[in-house]
Amino acid sequence: MSRISRREFVKSTSTVAVGAAILPVGLLRGSLKSERVRIGVIGTGLRGQWHIQLALRRRDVEISAICDIDEGMIGMALKVYQEAGRKKPAIYRKGPEDYLNMVEREDLDGIIIATPWEWHAPMALAAMEAGMHVGVEVPAALTVEDCWNLVDTSERTGKFCMILENVCYRRDVMAVLNMVRKRLFGELLHCQCGYQHDLRHVKFNDGKQPYGGGVEFGEKGFSEARWRTNHSVNRNGDLYPTHGAGPVSTMLDINRGNRFVHLTSTATQTRGLHKYIVDQAGEDHPNAGIKFKLGDVVTTVIKCAGGQTVVVSHDTNSPRPYSLNFRVQGT
Amino acid sequence: MSRISRREFVKSTSTVAVGAAILPVGLLRGSLKSERVRIGVIGTGLRGQWHIQLALRRRDVEISAICDIDEGMIGMALKVYQEAGRKKPAIYRKGPEDYLNMVEREDLDGIIIATPWEWHAPMALAAMEAGMHVGVEVPAALTVEDCWNLVDTSERTGKFCMILENVCYRRDVMAVLNMVRKRLFGELLHCQCGYQHDLRHVKFNDGKQPYGGGVEFGEKGFSEARWRTNHSVNRNGDLYPTHGAGPVSTMLDINRGNRFVHLTSTATQTRGLHKYIVDQAGEDHPNAGIKFKLGDVVTTVIKCAGGQTVVVSHDTNSPRPYSLNFRVQGT
Repeated sequence: MSRISRREFVKSTSTVAVGAAILPVGLLRGSLKSERVRIGVIGTGLRGQWHIQLALRRRDVEISAICDIDEGMIGMALKVYQEAGRKKPAIYRKGPEDYLNMVEREDLDGIIIATPWEWHAPMALAAMEAGMHVGVEVPAALTVEDCWNLVDTSERTGKFCMILENVCYRRDVMAVLNMVRKRLFGELLHCQCGYQHDLRHVKFNDGKQPYGGGVEFGEKGFSEARWRTNHSVNRNGDLYPTHGAGPVSTMLDINRGNRFVHLTSTATQTRGLHKYIVDQAGEDHPNAGIKFKLGDVVTTVIKCAGGQTVVVSHDTNSPRPYSLNFRVQGT
Repeated sequence: MSRISRREFVKSTSTVAVGAAILPVGLLRGSLKSERVRIGVIGTGLRGQWHIQLALRRRDVEISAICDIDEGMIGMALKVYQEAGRKKPAIYRKGPEDYLNMVEREDLDGIIIATPWEWHAPMALAAMEAGMHVGVEVPAALTVEDCWNLVDTSERTGKFCMILENVCYRRDVMAVLNMVRKRLFGELLHCQCGYQHDLRHVKFNDGKQPYGGGVEFGEKGFSEARWRTNHSVNRNGDLYPTHGAGPVSTMLDINRGNRFVHLTSTATQTRGLHKYIVDQAGEDHPNAGIKFKLGDVVTTVIKCAGGQTVVVSHDTNSPRPYSLNFRVQGT
């Protein structure tokens, strides 16, 4: 910090912050269909409601259409409108394909997608094809093929596809990004990051409240436990890399002159979720017989074209304090 | 710590400590040739002198022979004897093969090896073949083949080959080992460890003092710079894994029911050593033209038969605080 005054540092940090604001209305100005940015939200679960709540705080944004298949969640979302004193949106609720009708609305500028993971890519693709800009929750895609589909479709249609990785905009992360750009670390060599978050009470609940109180999931679960936990049953790997890799990618200029070249990923045995079920509900609970594929700790090492390495950690089954495990190291 | 009293904890920690003492005289008792353990030291550099100094504090240990090719280092070692008020040892100084004569001495129980890395395996093998127990500095071998040679020779001759990894005996590390054995972490899932040590002033000096003051190494360097730095010129990878992997191996019961199954190792670009030379001595210094192979940060991920993963970090070229980067994580 010796070569840069605090005032100068804070000033340029704010500039970064403004440049990276979540809803870059300025960027859209030329193509706006009204004075307000009009956005549709697909997925009105707890995450979607939060998006709506934040957006409705801005007078220049209107969430004029919402879409979900869950009447309970739609009801909660409408309460958000009521509390914000804003006009009710159009509602698309006729089954899992009704979002296709919503994205055809002429009066929308963009779509926010906050649905279960497997829907992100198909919805983002459909929205861009229909001429909408897209903000999509993470992970934006579940396969490499779908990642490329998103890139290709965005380039072909000229529509933005923004991955809504909120960690990139944490104040501490943006401060470090600014330090990296001021070259306070010299040339970057190595970054460490990840998602170390005890999600056991998110993956399991009693089917009524979103966090804990039971060991149910899937059909019998509520909110994220309804769909997210199945990924731990059926898949092994880093299921949620962007909290870590997002910020680090900006710092390492990924896809802005640098790129990820190869990676290795190594998972531990899986113990945490089974143990949680047994500890909470005993060995005789039907869910105690389920075999989870997701290893408790997954470590991924990425090599960049510039030579830098990144260690990404994924750890959502263990009792441990929350940590993004950040480290930035340079010459 | 709730299920175990502090008194009980401290008591059992000390038991571990005694059981793991550096010179396990008790183990040798049956095969001793005199009342004192008689040891020869090959390599009387700064490390060897430290071994001698520590051992001479014990009345039940005698370092009755030393071996080196560097007259200056032999002189410094003899001063250690003088200061300890102990009898001068026999000295083997007739060239790089004279250690073969020392290990043939009938009156020695064991050999400590503290020479440049590439000599560790051949010297340990020769000593065991001659009927000596061996304590060898790390890394004990530079190739997988030599690792197996050490194992096979130890088993065939019935001689111990102890790797002198001092970090295993740090008080904090032994406390954690005891916590692991008390199952305070449950079943282990993941360990993190390594060697993050700014060795730039060890790898380079002025040829007179061991640490810093210049950018010379090899023929023109002194002490470790004389030979260690060449490994950074010629090799890429984790050149010094045992500070981290040693303690973690005991915690994970490696070769006591568990074992390492596979690993990946990924290195960053190499910048630190070149930059150090340029910063200290300018771009025109002859050493500024040297290409170093060793990446600045090397990350190795190991998978164990029991499913656990270990991340080992090697980082000796960068300006950074010392850290062994330890983490132990369980269910």
